[in-house]
Parts: sequence; C-alpha cells; structure tokens
Amino acid sequence: MSNHIIALLTDFGSEDGYAAAMKGRILSLTPGVKLVDVSHDIEPYNIRQAAFSLNNCYPYFPPKTIFVVVVDPGVGTDRHGLVIKTSQYYFVGPDNGVFSFIYAREAFQAYRIVLHKIETDISPTFHGRDVFAPIAAKIAANKNIGNYLVETREVVSFLHPPLRISDMTFSLKALTIDHFGNIIVNFHKKDWQKLGNTPNISVVIKDQTFSGIQETFGNTGEGELLLTWDSSGYLQIACNRGNAARKLQFSLTDPIQLKIW
Amino acid sequence: MSNHIIALLTDFGSEDGYAAAMKGRILSLTPGVKLVDVSHDIEPYNIRQAAFSLNNCYPYFPPKTIFVVVVDPGVGTDRHGLVIKTSQYYFVGPDNGVFSFIYAREAFQAYRIVLHKIETDISPTFHGRDVFAPIAAKIAANKNIGNYLVETREVVSFLHPPLRISDMTFSLKALTIDHFGNIIVNFHKKDWQKLGNTPNISVVIKDQTFSGIQETFGNTGEGELLLTWDSSGYLQIACNRGNAARKLQFSLTDPIQLKIW
Amino acid sequence: MSNHIIALLTDFGSEDGYAAAMKGRILSLTPGVKLVDVSHDIEPYNIRQAAFSLNNCYPYFPPKTIFVVVVDPGVGTDRHGLVIKTSQYYFVGPDNGVFSFIYAREAFQAYRIVLHKIETDISPTFHGRDVFAPIAAKIAANKNIGNYLVETREVVSFLHPPLRISDMTFSLKALTIDHFGNIIVNFHKKDWQKLGNTPNISVVIKDQTFSGIQETFGNTGEGELLLTWDSSGYLQIACNRGNAARKLQFSLTDPIQLKIW
Repeated sequence: MSNHIIALLTDFGSEDGYAAAMKGRILSLTPGVKLVDVSHDIEPYNIRQAAFSLNNCYPYFPPKTIFVVVVDPGVGTDRHGLVIKTSQYYFVGPDNGVFSFIYAREAFQAYRIVLHKIETDISPTFHGRDVFAPIAAKIAANKNIGNYLVETREVVSFLHPPLRISDMTFSLKALTIDHFGNIIVNFHKKDWQKLGNTPNISVVIKDQTFSGIQETFGNTGEGELLLTWDSSGYLQIACNRGNAARKLQFSLTDPIQLKIW
Repeated sequence: MSNHIIALLTDFGSEDGYAAAMKGRILSLTPGVKLVDVSHDIEPYNIRQAAFSLNNCYPYFPPKTIFVVVVDPGVGTDRHGLVIKTSQYYFVGPDNGVFSFIYAREAFQAYRIVLHKIETDISPTFHGRDVFAPIAAKIAANKNIGNYLVETREVVSFLHPPLRISDMTFSLKALTIDHFGNIIVNFHKKDWQKLGNTPNISVVIKDQTFSGIQETFGNTGEGELLLTWDSSGYLQIACNRGNAARKLQFSLTDPIQLKIW
Repeated sequence: MSNHIIALLTDFGSEDGYAAAMKGRILSLTPGVKLVDVSHDIEPYNIRQAAFSLNNCYPYFPPKTIFVVVVDPGVGTDRHGLVIKTSQYYFVGPDNGVFSFIYAREAFQAYRIVLHKIETDISPTFHGRDVFAPIAAKIAANKNIGNYLVETREVVSFLHPPLRISDMTFSLKALTIDHFGNIIVNFHKKDWQKLGNTPNISVVIKDQTFSGIQETFGNTGEGELLLTWDSSGYLQIACNRGNAARKLQFSLTDPIQLKIW
C-alpha cells in the first residue's frame, strides 16, 4: 500500500475515457494511491497552459506528490519522456516544455525514460496510459525505477526572462490567458524587485497603456482593466468582473511592452 | 488523520491549476481528508448557479461534510468570508449569496472570518487558496477555529419567495438555467402544497403558455416543452431530449408568470 | 468499510451539482468507497460517446470496480435499468446501448433493476441519484442486491460489425468523434486481422481517400490527415496536431467506405 498522491494534468478532456484509462492503470498498479485531478481541460496541445497550470498548484501539494503531465503533441516521435526529481516532488511527462517553470524555480535532477526497457506494450499514441502512468505508479509504490531511466542535463524550456530593449523598456511575452481572461506575462514580482520596485510602471498592449499595479480587482470599477500580480507572482492584465483578453481582443502572440521609470 | 469529506465548488475552471492549488493546500494541512469535486465549471462570477448547484447536492453527503464554495467576484473588497454551521454540515465561502438556499432550508449559525487573525500570507485575489481552503482543512482536522471567527446574524441572500401579484397570478424569477437547458424557477413543490395543490396550474414565458405539471420528460414527444418538478423540488420548464432555454430564447431576466386556479 | 472503486460516467456536466448528488449519496451509503470520475462531460444524451468512453477505460481498472454510467435520455419512461456483471467488473446504468462495447468484448450476465423493489423515493427524472448510485453503493458494500434484480437475456446494443458491400469494399459507420477531433470507425484491428492483414487498405470519406495505416501521428506533417489505430484498436481518421473532423467538416452520419486489396 502507498499513501502517495498522484496528481494528473492532461489535455485529454474527460469525455473519451483516456484520462480515466490512466487512472485505472495507476489504481491497478498501486491500489492505495490517492489520485487528484489537476485538470484534463488543458487546450489540446497547449504546452504553455499546462506548464502555467502546474506552476500555479504544485508548491501547495504535500511532499512526495507525483505530478503526471500529459500534453504531448509529439507522442510517438523521438521526443523524450522525462522524470524530474526535486527536493520535494516528482514530475513525469514529455520533454516539451511542460516543466519549464519547475526548471526555473527548483533545483532538480532530470532523467530520460528508456522506452525499450518498459516490459509492457506501448501504444505509439498513448504514452500517458502506457508509459507515464505506470512509471508514476511505480514511484508511488516505492519501487526502484532506476532501470528505466538515464540521467540527462538537457531539457526543453520555453520560459525566457523579459527582454530589455532600452533603459526603461522591456519586451514581454504572454505566458497564457487564464480561465477568467487574465493575460499573464513573463514579468515576475521578483523581476520588479531586482529593478528596485520602481514606483512608476506601465504596460502597453493593443495600443492601450495601463499604469500602476493595483493590489486587487476591487480597486477599480466593474469592467475596467488593470494591472495586478497574479496569485503566483506574475504580472497580469486583468478586468474587474470581466474578461481582459476578450475586451482587448488580445491573442497570445500580440506584442506587449513594459515601461518603468 | 481525518476522515472528513471536503467538497469543492468553484468557478475557477480546472485548467489554470487554481482549483488544484486549493486541493494541494488542503491535503498538505489535513492528509487524511477525502476531497470531492462538486464542480469547478460554474460560469465565472455566477453566484446563483453556484448556490443552485450546492442546493442540488449537499443534502446527499454524509454528516460532517465541509463544503467550500468559491465563486467570489468581490474577492479583495470588504465582502466578508463566512463559515456556516448547520446540524449536519459546514459551509465555507464568501458572503455574497452562494449559501442562499442553505439559509432557506436549514437552521444555521453564521460566522464571519476575521482575516487579520490568519497567520499566513493572503493573496488579495485568491482567498480560495489562502483563506477558505485552510479554514476548511482546520475544521476537517477537528482544530478549534473559534479564534478566526466572529458570529453574525446578517448574511446575504438572493432567494425570494414567489411574488403574488393577484389572486391567481404570481410573478416568478428564474433561479438558473441548468446544463440541459431546463429553466428552473422560484416556485417550490412546497409553495404549491401551501396553495392546496391546485389542480390547474400554468406558466407563461416568452408569450407561450404551458399547463399542467408532468411527472417526467418521457410523457411528451421529443423536442416538446413541458412543466415538471426538478430533482430538488423546484418548478422547471424543460424540453424532452432538448434544450428549453435555447428553444425559447430565454434569458435569465425574462419575466415568468404562474397562474393557478 | 469497503475498498471498492466506483467509477462515474455521466452527461450531467458538473455545474448543477447533479453528479455531486450521486457522489454524496454513494459516500453516505458506503463511506470507504473510492470514487473516480471518468467523465461528466459526455455530450447531453450522447449514448455512443458514453459507450466509447467506457470502452476506452474500463479494462484498465482493478477487478471489482463498479462503473455507473448515466446517459439516460429515456429516464422516466419504461426503459429498463441494468446491472451487468462480467468476470471482473460491475456496470450499472440504463438499457439504452451505453454498454454496447461490453457486450461485444466480455462474457456477461445481465439483470434488470425492479424499480418498485427499491424502498426509497425515486425522482422520475433522476435515476442516477435515486436508483443507480444506491445500487452501486450496495454492490460496493458487498450487500446482497438479488432482491432488486431479475435476470434478462435481452439488452440494447448499437454496435454493428462493418458491412461488407462487395468483395473488397465495406460500408463503415463513425462510432464517435473524440476530444481531439479523431473520427473513430467500426473497424477494429481484429477485423483487419481476420481479413489477413491485407497490405493495401484505404478509407474514402467526404470524397477524399486516405491509404495506408500509420503507426503514429508524428509520421506525417503537421496538419496532415492520416489513418491510424486508436488506443483501443479501432481505426481512426486523425490529423497530426489538428482536428480531423473539423478539417473534413465531417458529421457523424456521413458515409465512410473502406477498401482493401
């Protein structure tokens, strides 16, 4: 028996039973494990959204939690499967950037999964069920999985620091648009602290300029746009009781500038 | 260890990891607890839908279940956080009407959460994770939370009885439109019983009149509209194998009249 | 106490609390049971999607798992409720085809639920909560449910073998379109094996012909359509990193031809 938690994060939706197949497999291999759904509603193939979702929740889980993240457009190609180990957690999934925030925030060891060492049949289109779920179940059962792994120092990340383009100007990128339509950008409270918490800060997005970081949505009128820190510390353009991305007709590749002075 | 159940109901969606952050926090504080997802798919900021959802499920849970409801457009303003205690259950969430049905159906005690008594950091935009989840976890762990609470007699409710506008006519309001497009209105089987179960009853909605309450959808032809009691006892306008709200192009503020004779 | 798993599959959505009412009821009757959400996002009344979803996941669950499937457009009519028993599992739900794949793949015994033997109130619109959930809970608690059941040999199935229309041509039907837009058809790897794994195989759909079965999506260019076996062995028309059904503007009743030679 095991009292580990395995937390699942996929883009499978739930309605086809694919996510449930992973659950069944894990429960068959390690009956005592506690399954937690992070989400199965990641937009299909949206690696950034999955990474962001993981970043928002993993630090709150108990030590030894195993996160299985399967947003995997490259399944069946030669992309690698990974097991990432930090001081507190395990992360299992494809090497395509879904763990980008983990690499930025944690000391970690990375291991590639050696597919041909796995004894059971592997569907070329469903490593979630046939590779990642069983590996996670073995970790939860405290089984030695060293045989399936080779350490690596190369992992894929999409996370880049804000790009300084002049003394007071940065070019930012949207990390994701969240469920409420908040536009979350690659500028963290820590980046701001490094710049000395400059009192004047503004964001230019879709030809509109927003200045000053509000502590909370309620400080502005209903339907108004504002800048605020999101709950994991990234800067976001939000809309009080509304949807900022829709209001600005913003799409993920639109340019964003940050000015400080 | 605790064998309590904590049931979660939010408008967070699952895809950003916000709901999972609440789960992680609860499991970190109270490992043995059993988490149940009621829903994370409440329409953003839709307090009535959350209240209705809670009403449909809470009476079926085991005694001592703790319901955490976070549909919270006013987070970060001076709206209060609440702990509601009934003879069987606890309810934790914002004081904005999400517990309206509980107040109407149960004897209860209400307590406001005193934010500054909470020892940990509180994100002004995420009380679900930083206030309501930890309070629920402490209740589940049988910890004394009296220190965080002040009793109150004032709570917010949106639930109003049907408005009698003439001897035989009531003005009704839609409580919600459910997943199947059923339009559920503020007229309960008990209201009808009080009126002596009058044999003749009809509803006027969008210039159409429907008469007689059917026992089940199957009594009508496919695609036909009908009146029936919903599974928690409220009157609903439903469509056999179809979507009544869409068929009637009904929106939540449209007037509804009930006639009895 | 029970250590059974009850896996839930419905078209209720989660937002109205109907699925949660089932969960509460089960946990009240059989506290130790482990609940697993397969899905509550089946398209309303889509029996085929539910059957397909169940087929994709059930074989991976531990023995003794009880599957409760409630996609039930005929609730309240004289359609029967069923308990299906196979060597490993129980299945509980309406007799409308949701168990079609089980009948095709497993030896089974079928029992009709005798409604008037159930002691508690039954809402005519919500057998999920009032009939199927309690029956599943009783099975999980190892209670004798023989009193509620009558064996039957007649069950409803929508699953038909591929229709041979000439020596080398079959008329196929779409079983479902999955979350990723893959079009899954009633031609199984086993059907192909029976035909001697003919090397030449092609599918005509929406006036386009696709030839050869690829091992994985990654074998084709991004956005390209291909034939491949789905993860439970059915033939599918898929699109590498895209949505095949949308790309082909395919709807479920469109004709599909298979040619082998």
